Amino acid sequence: MRELSGDLRHLSINSATARNQLTLPAFIEACARRGIPAIDPWRDQVHAVGLTQVARHVKDAGLALTGYCRGGFFPAVDAAGLRAALEDNRRAVDEAKALGASCLVLVAGALPGALCGTPAHRNIGLARTQVMDGIAATLDYARSLSVPLAIEPLHPMQAADRACINTLEQALDICDALDPSRSGALGVALDVYHTWWDPKLTAQIARAGRERLLAYHVCDWLVPTRDLVNDRGMMGDGIIELKKIRSLLERAGYAGYVEVEIFSQAWWTRPADELLDTCVARYQTVV
Amino acid sequence: MRELSGDLRHLSINSATARNQLTLPAFIEACARRGIPAIDPWRDQVHAVGLTQVARHVKDAGLALTGYCRGGFFPAVDAAGLRAALEDNRRAVDEAKALGASCLVLVAGALPGALCGTPAHRNIGLARTQVMDGIAATLDYARSLSVPLAIEPLHPMQAADRACINTLEQALDICDALDPSRSGALGVALDVYHTWWDPKLTAQIARAGRERLLAYHVCDWLVPTRDLVNDRGMMGDGIIELKKIRSLLERAGYAGYVEVEIFSQAWWTRPADELLDTCVARYQTVV
Repeated sequence: MRELSGDLRHLSINSATARNQLTLPAFIEACARRGIPAIDPWRDQVHAVGLTQVARHVKDAGLALTGYCRGGFFPAVDAAGLRAALEDNRRAVDEAKALGASCLVLVAGALPGALCGTPAHRNIGLARTQVMDGIAATLDYARSLSVPLAIEPLHPMQAADRACINTLEQALDICDALDPSRSGALGVALDVYHTWWDPKLTAQIARAGRERLLAYHVCDWLVPTRDLVNDRGMMGDGIIELKKIRSLLERAGYAGYVEVEIFSQAWWTRPADELLDTCVARYQTVV
Repeated sequence: MRELSGDLRHLSINSATARNQLTLPAFIEACARRGIPAIDPWRDQVHAVGLTQVARHVKDAGLALTGYCRGGFFPAVDAAGLRAALEDNRRAVDEAKALGASCLVLVAGALPGALCGTPAHRNIGLARTQVMDGIAATLDYARSLSVPLAIEPLHPMQAADRACINTLEQALDICDALDPSRSGALGVALDVYHTWWDPKLTAQIARAGRERLLAYHVCDWLVPTRDLVNDRGMMGDGIIELKKIRSLLERAGYAGYVEVEIFSQAWWTRPADELLDTCVARYQTVV
């Protein structure tokens, strides 16, 4: 297992972690200043600044991109909606390519309208079929640009509104169906927050292997958890066996970055320096 | 698929649904008055009145018991704690027997102390081993009294503090290990709230079959859900495909009651008559 305490060479931080405190340019500067070698920017934050400027800034700062968040949200109520989702995913692939991101992270989507509180229907099976079709259609384009697609299974508590892909096994079944040769064009983004509870986690990480493990996200699960979306914990403050899960990934061949992604109303109200310094300190001790 | 609209013969209501409004005796009366033929009482509510009185009251009212909630919570930090949990589960079996309940519902337990916000450790694998051992030890006793044990897989969002059995597949794996002959002594309580999201639900319900399907609980998943425990919805107010899931159970041979169990701060503040009348009306139309 890799030793993380000595330096920051395997650390990445997701821009959403400090989205309330720092604009993307300020976030890039803050990371570069600390010697953090990689980030994962969110799409809305990139758009707010401009793709070309962000791409240049990231390059000038010498940062790697451990992903681009996010594509996905494939399900829709009609053909026009499905088509619009595919077009949007193509643009996301283009942007990931322009930024030099190592993959495009896919949050599948779920029941259309549910994220706004007005689900158009309750047929999760249909949503899952549309996700499969959407990934298949996007994969051809992404492959042509050499942008790997990373399906992120989301916690089952987000199955209605954010992603109907909810276990690593389910994500890997899609990978096997659409990329049976394990080409590296399709894999998963494994986030401990979404998957730590899974009784099949050990076996499915081994099944995934190096070719399918495209990104690794960490935070922690608080006890109690008070919100289904924005109450993630800082690594070490919760009950996830972080070192154990990382050891499973590394045993399966994962040699990539460890990306910190924390959605937390509590941390979003703390000073950016305290937040980022804590991410670094915890990365070196408990991850 | 059975037709539910004509009468209430397959309806049961869990006492927790009205626990804020009605004592157990008042709940029994309210159900009997409506022609609801079955209930599932919670243990603390039974203890508050007295086992003998409740058993007599239930019998006098002519009610069936679709379960007794609950045994379980097997994990502990030391041998004394494990022993105490086993003793408590034996008492729960005795009480289920005295009440004439059709099964004892098991909520497995998870990280010791987590329910009070102070988890003693983070080793969910250890907790799962202790749950397996605890069920095995309890099963012998329960079998001797002819009280079936119904493992209830809980939603993964409750994996840290309430139950580390989180999918139907995982529960059935335990059943197969401890009761390979499918004797009827060990099975599952399937609650739509905990399992609706599961991509393997259809296959696992078929796998369970009549011998393993000991209880069926309904409510609904609200969008958005604002609390991880007490924001369940009334049937029809959320996105769970209730008729579809019931059809899967009945196709697998389930011919038992449909039990309404709603933990909801919102419904707990409404008048008991409105709550129970709504349960009945929704049972006859959307379940």
